Amino acid sequence: MTDFNCFFAPRSLAFLGASTDTKKWGFRILANVLTGGFQGKIYPVNPKGGEVLGLKVYSTIEEIPEVPDLAVIVVPPPAMVETIKECVVKGIKAGVVVTAGFAEVGRDGAAVQEEIVRIARQGGLRLIGPNCFGILSPSAKLYAQMPPIFPPDGEMAVVSQSGNVGLTIARRAMSIEFGVSRLVSIGNEADLRTEDFLEYLAGDDHTKVILSYIEGFKDGRRFFEIAKKTSLKKPIVMIKVGETEAGASAARSHTAALSGSAEVFNGISRQAGIVRANNLLELMNLGYGFTCHPIPRGRRVGIATLGGGWGVLAADACARLGLDVIKLPEDVIKELDSFLPGWWSRNNPVDLVAGSADNITRVVDILARCDQTDSVLALGVPFPHFARVGLPTNEEEKKKFFEFVVESYTNSFREMKAISRKYDKPVVIAAELPTPRGERALDVDILRCIAKENMICYSMPDEAAKVLDSMVTYGEFLRQG
Amino acid sequence: MTDFNCFFAPRSLAFLGASTDTKKWGFRILANVLTGGFQGKIYPVNPKGGEVLGLKVYSTIEEIPEVPDLAVIVVPPPAMVETIKECVVKGIKAGVVVTAGFAEVGRDGAAVQEEIVRIARQGGLRLIGPNCFGILSPSAKLYAQMPPIFPPDGEMAVVSQSGNVGLTIARRAMSIEFGVSRLVSIGNEADLRTEDFLEYLAGDDHTKVILSYIEGFKDGRRFFEIAKKTSLKKPIVMIKVGETEAGASAARSHTAALSGSAEVFNGISRQAGIVRANNLLELMNLGYGFTCHPIPRGRRVGIATLGGGWGVLAADACARLGLDVIKLPEDVIKELDSFLPGWWSRNNPVDLVAGSADNITRVVDILARCDQTDSVLALGVPFPHFARVGLPTNEEEKKKFFEFVVESYTNSFREMKAISRKYDKPVVIAAELPTPRGERALDVDILRCIAKENMICYSMPDEAAKVLDSMVTYGEFLRQG
Repeated sequence: MTDFNCFFAPRSLAFLGASTDTKKWGFRILANVLTGGFQGKIYPVNPKGGEVLGLKVYSTIEEIPEVPDLAVIVVPPPAMVETIKECVVKGIKAGVVVTAGFAEVGRDGAAVQEEIVRIARQGGLRLIGPNCFGILSPSAKLYAQMPPIFPPDGEMAVVSQSGNVGLTIARRAMSIEFGVSRLVSIGNEADLRTEDFLEYLAGDDHTKVILSYIEGFKDGRRFFEIAKKTSLKKPIVMIKVGETEAGASAARSHTAALSGSAEVFNGISRQAGIVRANNLLELMNLGYGFTCHPIPRGRRVGIATLGGGWGVLAADACARLGLDVIKLPEDVIKELDSFLPGWWSRNNPVDLVAGSADNITRVVDILARCDQTDSVLALGVPFPHFARVGLPTNEEEKKKFFEFVVESYTNSFREMKAISRKYDKPVVIAAELPTPRGERALDVDILRCIAKENMICYSMPDEAAKVLDSMVTYGEFLRQG
Repeated sequence: MTDFNCFFAPRSLAFLGASTDTKKWGFRILANVLTGGFQGKIYPVNPKGGEVLGLKVYSTIEEIPEVPDLAVIVVPPPAMVETIKECVVKGIKAGVVVTAGFAEVGRDGAAVQEEIVRIARQGGLRLIGPNCFGILSPSAKLYAQMPPIFPPDGEMAVVSQSGNVGLTIARRAMSIEFGVSRLVSIGNEADLRTEDFLEYLAGDDHTKVILSYIEGFKDGRRFFEIAKKTSLKKPIVMIKVGETEAGASAARSHTAALSGSAEVFNGISRQAGIVRANNLLELMNLGYGFTCHPIPRGRRVGIATLGGGWGVLAADACARLGLDVIKLPEDVIKELDSFLPGWWSRNNPVDLVAGSADNITRVVDILARCDQTDSVLALGVPFPHFARVGLPTNEEEKKKFFEFVVESYTNSFREMKAISRKYDKPVVIAAELPTPRGERALDVDILRCIAKENMICYSMPDEAAKVLDSMVTYGEFLRQG
């Protein structure tokens, strides 16, 4: 039985291939481990001994005064077999092999890779990689990865066969202070594979949704069974590449993956309840959506919009995806008539038309309360009309004004969240946030504020519709079991 | 013959329905005209007279001491017929009717709208609207629109049947200091229609690409003929909505538009060379792409990438769209072998693998030089490796460091632009830019810097592939005539 705690909450860490050369990964990754604030013992190893970043460097693995939970391995390919042997002798149970140059570069590399796995498995050592960027587990302050990024703790786990795609996901999330629970780059999957991590993450309390990038898989049957069991516990959002000849060829040179047929994978993912993303932006959007919203009970959607065009775009997007843009019941129309201006659309989307922004919270509440909707799309959020000509010129006043803007938006999002909670239906929001002003990225400021309270705002109506549809489809999978 | 200079470069402007009430559009739009710095004469009109924003208010249109080039009209619906009559009597030739409450609210409104158009046309007055947000023409410092936004002058014209969609486009563009040439919200198209503006913009030197949002059109034959003629001069990028029953119904209540059949419009746009966007983000991306890049001569693409996963995503996206991800010729492989590390992919995409970022400019140059490519996709841009643990803590040093980062990226983009110019092929870039740091939005800073030199960076590989494919398809239309 693999102890995944050795990977995601290690008490101690051996760093094999430590270097004092600041250009080498043997220095950079170690620097990240330290900057990230890892609390356990760290044992750098290099035959030359000495010191790096204030830590004693051990000449051999043997010399380390305890059995470390985790080994992060960046030694060059020719030293790999010996290093793995020494890890096994030491009794280490978990290793992350960052080094590249194995199965992905040809037959010789593949042979070495097989040898490594054989030795490791015989010795009870489980491996991530080779050819990966490392591992992150923010709740354990573990940041053992190539680039110096430190996303906060969150509820999205990421399992990626591509290092740079995994990092794109992390960087995008952290740019709005959205956290990740675990992030693992699994590279060539010589030993542990995507499905092993799905199995672990299914029971991981830190994780609410699993995002995955996959180029190919080696044991379709096992993958399918684990994915299906996992999906019944929490959503797996997956981007599958290598579905064209050009993509499949690129995947072979990248991680030696065999991509398989698109039809087969479509069938597998439908039956296993896997939520498919067509591109990286969708993957991110779905990750945020599943983190922030309850699963809708059905396809019926009410739409409230502050602008006509956005409403039409949303209605089209919803209908194209098979969501049901309901006909408004008479009592809802009557209630809306009682306070909306005479020219409102009397239709779903409820178009509030320029100027009546303050009404949107009320409209969203009515649409969410209506027993003929399962979810509400809110386009635009209410905010005070800043009816002033130009900005304050005084720096202090300007700062205060910006803070007021951010706080006003955040409060509007809180009201939407409260409505969602009251009726236990998703209120999915797409809105234009204020554009950056000078050095201040007001839109990012707002996204960061709301992320802390588990809220997200999409930038386009069709993005919100796509997320809603995927949540509905996942809900249908859950109900059908 | 309509004089569009009266709309886009007016020497004087009557503002009908001026108000001192800061909550009314009669105040706010006028405030925007002033803030925008309009250089011509401004004549506010309101029966009450008095003063507004330091300007004398005329009681009647008749009193204005000259014939204004343009009338911006925000009077309430009951006063509209009389106002239009007075404009005609005065001899005004161009009017923008912002006021809503006509054809889009029902039969009575439609009747008034018809009456207005009849009077205007008889008197030689051409109208934009009603039910629109106004008009922008930055080169004339004309900002006569509802919200207080002031995008810089640029080469993208926007013609939108939806006010808020038009504004979304403008706001998105200006957030990275990308400019617009003209922006017109045409609302109900009671008189002037989308195709009238296409015809004008085809010959407008300020405009390189036309972005358009359309819900429906009234004279298919005329639209088609003008669109085709226009496309032969410059690209029209169009988002067509109302293609589902829900969307069509929303469009009817929005601008009284009849959306027509999707199949018919697909046929029309194919034959007329219209570049279709599936959503707003694509519309923006295509606008930037056509502004920044030369039209590719064919479908053959070379891809250089700093990360394997991004390469696979790009190859898949290109192949799915029908672009030809070429097999690298032997001499290109040989040349790349001479300086790339042993483990490079020997394949298209050329995967530079983590750590060899400085080589990408050289690789892009080789791919662009190769006579078997028509364009290059560059994923990731070269930048100095900032091999430091943490950021400077001193505020002054931090500021300098950020400026250095922005300048380094900008220089990398300049190198890519130079390669594109040298071989007259598009080098389309998708890259992860640095995430915001504290209050500094470094990514936005970089995008703003490069926008000033007519460059764009897409955030995802599939976005770049989509733009490239649309440019190729447009090029094919041009060659087939």
